[in-house]
Order: sequence, then C-alpha cells, then structure tokens
Amino acid sequence: MPPAKTPVTVDALLADDGPPQRRAIAKAITLLESTRADHRAQADELLTALLPHTGKSFRLGISGVPGVGKSTFIETLGLFLIGQGHRVAVLTIDPSSTVSGGSILGDKTRMEHLSVHERAYIRPSPSSGTLGGVAEKTREAMLVCEAAGYDIVIVETVGVGQSETAVSGMTDMFVLLQLPNAGDDLQAIKKGVMELADLVVINKADIDKDAATRAQAQITSALRLFGHHGNPAHAQAIHAAHATPGSPEAEVRFWLPRVIQLSALLGTGVDAFWDAVLQFKSLQAANGRFASRREKQALAWMWERIDAGLKQAFRQHPRVRELLPQAVAQVAAGRLPASTAARQLLAAQAGQA
Amino acid sequence: MPPAKTPVTVDALLADDGPPQRRAIAKAITLLESTRADHRAQADELLTALLPHTGKSFRLGISGVPGVGKSTFIETLGLFLIGQGHRVAVLTIDPSSTVSGGSILGDKTRMEHLSVHERAYIRPSPSSGTLGGVAEKTREAMLVCEAAGYDIVIVETVGVGQSETAVSGMTDMFVLLQLPNAGDDLQAIKKGVMELADLVVINKADIDKDAATRAQAQITSALRLFGHHGNPAHAQAIHAAHATPGSPEAEVRFWLPRVIQLSALLGTGVDAFWDAVLQFKSLQAANGRFASRREKQALAWMWERIDAGLKQAFRQHPRVRELLPQAVAQVAAGRLPASTAARQLLAAQAGQA
Repeated sequence: MPPAKTPVTVDALLADDGPPQRRAIAKAITLLESTRADHRAQADELLTALLPHTGKSFRLGISGVPGVGKSTFIETLGLFLIGQGHRVAVLTIDPSSTVSGGSILGDKTRMEHLSVHERAYIRPSPSSGTLGGVAEKTREAMLVCEAAGYDIVIVETVGVGQSETAVSGMTDMFVLLQLPNAGDDLQAIKKGVMELADLVVINKADIDKDAATRAQAQITSALRLFGHHGNPAHAQAIHAAHATPGSPEAEVRFWLPRVIQLSALLGTGVDAFWDAVLQFKSLQAANGRFASRREKQALAWMWERIDAGLKQAFRQHPRVRELLPQAVAQVAAGRLPASTAARQLLAAQAGQA
Repeated sequence: MPPAKTPVTVDALLADDGPPQRRAIAKAITLLESTRADHRAQADELLTALLPHTGKSFRLGISGVPGVGKSTFIETLGLFLIGQGHRVAVLTIDPSSTVSGGSILGDKTRMEHLSVHERAYIRPSPSSGTLGGVAEKTREAMLVCEAAGYDIVIVETVGVGQSETAVSGMTDMFVLLQLPNAGDDLQAIKKGVMELADLVVINKADIDKDAATRAQAQITSALRLFGHHGNPAHAQAIHAAHATPGSPEAEVRFWLPRVIQLSALLGTGVDAFWDAVLQFKSLQAANGRFASRREKQALAWMWERIDAGLKQAFRQHPRVRELLPQAVAQVAAGRLPASTAARQLLAAQAGQA
C-alpha cells in the first residue's frame, strides 16, 4: 500500500467513528512504515501529537513456536475480551516477513471471526527492515492503536530469532504458549525465552490432560530454578514471601511467574487466563513495576534506535565506504589487526584519516 | 604497572632469550592496556609490526563455573604440554576485575608450578574497561604471546556474564569444564554456553565415578538435542555421517562436540583430553573450519570495536551531552516517543540540530 496522499489527522484517529477511523489507522501505520524522509518527518510529528493519548492500553505479548495454536488462542481471547466491552488490536512481529517480503501471517483468515469484528483491529507484521526496524514500526503502530482507543493491544510473535525479546521489550506482560509435551520447554529455556515469561500457558490441554499436567509441573519447577538463579525480581518475591508478616518487605508483593492450562480451541480456561492477567496487572500497578517497566522499555527502545542509527551512518559514510572493502580483506587475511582496522575506520568517519 | 618508558621493540619480543623476552612481553601488554592516546598509537604500530609473526599458536578457550577446578586443570595441562616441548601462555578474562579494580585470579599461586616455569607465561585479566574492552586487550595480548613463540595460548574465563562468548570468539577451540553433577549443565544450556562448547570435560571424575558417567551421558544427549536444533554445523556433520560412502558429502568430515571425563588433580585423562584436542585440530584444518573460524573472529572483532567506538563518540559529542539528559527525562516520562528522541539526538550529533 503506498503512503497516503492526504495527511492523517490526529482527530481522525481519536474519533471512534467506525470505518473512517479504521482507514485513518491504516493510513497512519502505512506512513510510519514508509522509508521516505518526508514521510518519516510527518510520522514523527504525528507520533508526538498522538503521544498524550497513548499508553492507556494493556499491552500483552504472546509468543510460542509454530503449531502451538497462537492464532486460535488470540481469536478466542480477542472475542472474549470484546464480549467484556474491550476493543482489541492485534499486531504481529514476524522477522521472516523481512526475508519473504510479506508476512506469512498476513492472511486474516487466520482469525476469521476476530478479523471482521468492528471492535478489533488486526495488522500483520511490517515486511521490510531488520528485526529492530520491524519492532520499531510495531511499537509505533501500537501507539496509533492506543490513541484510537484500543484498550487491549496484543503483540504476537512467531517465535523466530530474537523476536520474543523484542516483543517482551514492548509489552506489559509476556505470555509464552507451550504444547503439552516436555520437548519444547527445553528449547524455550535454551533460547532464554522462558525467563522472559510472566505467564506460561499450556495450550491444547484437551488433547492429553495427563501430559499437560506433567508439563505444567515440569515448567513450574523450571521457572523456579531459572527464576531463582537468574532473576532478581524472583529472588525478591521469594524474600518478600518469607518476610515477617506486617514488616515492610511483606507489604510489597511481587508477581511470581506461573503456569496454567487451557484449550483455546474449546475455549476452556480462557476466563482463568484473563483472571491471571488481571491479578498480574493489579500487582504490577501496586508495586510500581508497571510504570517502571514501561519507562525502562522506552529508554531501551531509544538506545536501540540510536545504535541502529549510528551503525547506518557509519556504513553510509563516503570515506568509510571507500576504505571498508580493503580493511575487511586485510583483517580477514590476517594482515591488519582487527582493533587497528576499527580505529582507522572510526578515524576516517571522524574526518581524521 | 605504569607503561614502559623505553619502547618495546619487535626484536626483543621475537628473541627467545629468557628473562629479557619475558620483560618485553610484559611491557608490550602493559602498553596495549594503557588508555593514553600516544600509547595507543605506539601499541597499534607494534601490533601491526608483530602481525606477520602471529597466528601460529593453537588458541584454546577454557571455561567453567567457579569451583570446577580450572586452575588445577590448566596447571596440569600446561605442565603436560611443556613436557611435550610446547611453550604455553595463559591469559584470563575476568569481567569482575573491572569492578574490583584487580583480577581476583591475579594471584599466581593459583598455578604455582606452571607460573614459575620458564616455558610458561601467565597474565591475569586486564582490570579496567567493559567486557568488550577487556576482551580486546586479551586478544591483543594473545598476539604478543604468539609473536614471542608461545605455540599454545590458553584463554581462561571465570564463567561470569558474557565472558564465555568473548573467549569462544577468540579461540580455535572452546572447552567447557563441568562438575560431575547434573545441576550446572542446565545452567550452561540456559546461558547458551553449552552450544559454544567443542568439548565438554567432566572434571573431578575421581570423586564419584558413577555421577561422572551419568553426567557424561546426560550432557552428550543435551549436546545432541541442542546441536541438532540450533547448530547448522552439527546438522551438516550428521548429514555427512549418513552420506553414501565415497560421495563428496561423506568425504568432508566435521567435528561433533563430545564429552570426556578426567581428574585434573590426579592427572588422569589429560593425555586423552589432548588426543581429543589434536583430533579436533586436524579435522578443522582438513575441512577448512580452522581458517574460516579465525577469519570470522577477526571480522567480528573489528565490528565489535567499531560499534563500541561509535557509541563512545556519540556519548561524548558536546551537543548530545547537552541534549541527552532532557531527552532521557522526556522519554522516561512518556512525553516524547523514543524513536523520535533517537532521531533528534542522531541529528544533533550530525550537526543538523
């Protein structure tokens, strides 16, 4: 879709007037995804104007390997939340779309009831750029959806590469979907995804209740093991749980990651899932972690974009482009120390060589 | 130790003349570790002059959690190698030394026989800078030791933070020491260290032979599991192993990570360990991975130093230093989109704002 010719107005985004608002959202996100410098300037202006109207949604990250049933889960959850009066936006981060040139998950028939619902907005993954670039567009799209009044924003990832880290870095709560077998929790541990999870959901529990219960026990103990070693918040939570009743430590309560079972296909357990989310949300609000997590995310996002910008400027610098091929060849051949090459190239960019 | 007043000559480093050469090595490494710009220029000059004399050693990385027996292992191995006619350098990467201001492993009494041997050179971790900076100094010190004729360079890490990745990124072979119990292999898997290992050594096998054998079986299957899923080289090796005999695929042979037991304290199994290292080395030479790994490492090192340099220049830019505090405050407070702040700061550095 080419960027819109007429500018998107903040008013059009804020007015909840059905189809015209949906078109304004689509136009705004397309503008954000444009690589043209003038569009980027317009997008920055729009974002800054929107900002006071953002941040009021609950941002829910959902991950899991292909086949775990994310689409069915999100469709079931989305319809459940709409039934409770919410408006639900679903955004996707799919790093593979940057290779294929289009999101493999772009097909809205994936969530056939949710995608046609007037109180839902579904947007596939941006289909160009690095994972960092794709994540940035998705973060910005999230702000647009929030300004447009969607009070639940679900950011889904396909569980490829580092996309889980990107999603957990832009959401208030990160949920990991697992199948009721012991194999893929080891993968999640290995990739460091398990320790990102605020909640682990064993989906398809209807297929084999015993296996699901075994998986629940295993993952619960894995969360304890890795939480205890790797996660200061976890240790603090355990400390608080053992504090003398009435003492200040006992007053501050922290969330301990937990594991639940459900069947998205049958719709069983979705209400218990949402209860857990609400408990998490109120605990995070009470202990201050909700706000501090968003603050950290915003700053981390800023630094990530700065790093990406610095690298891009370096590679595009005329003198660097001129010197780089030979430096790479010499370093690869062992004729120039890598650290010396780095210093020479940096000096060239700075105009000192 | 302050940097040397008289310059280090390449000749002094190349001449294997006992104590004077040792002093030249120490002076050269001290020069490399200096942060003064003129020292850095001298160091770059020295490194470039040394480079044709480097690269001929075998670079062996050794990691493992505190208490696994790294010092005893390195002492036993070092003396074994000296007995075979080698000269052995031992360098350490200890990120905690940048906090404490001195390496906790600096005490040479750790390896009391090896440290006083005239055919061994032991240098503790550089004690300032980021992990990237410490790793850079160690890589450069490695080049000095190679030029000085040490044909085995052991780079040891204390297994803290990302130091294992740094060590595996500068060595020809990465060895992980484990204790004969099942607990710490899960930690190694979680931290992604297991998949870096070319060889896993279960040390202290004398204490409980049964436990060591169980651990060996467990880690072997863990290596297979994670190797198969995560490591293309592993998949390729398995593919080659199943190829039709005589076909081109069957001719190219790859190393499959393996697990051995030994007791560094009793000195049993060190010869079998070294046999495994030599098998690895000849296989890597035959299939071209020895050279390609070094090439990749050199280029990765160059880019890492460029990234670090770009970040430093950004943070030190006067206009950035002026604008950064307010940008950080506004982003943290949710009054400025993070991506907009990033673009504004980058423009400020580029002189456009």
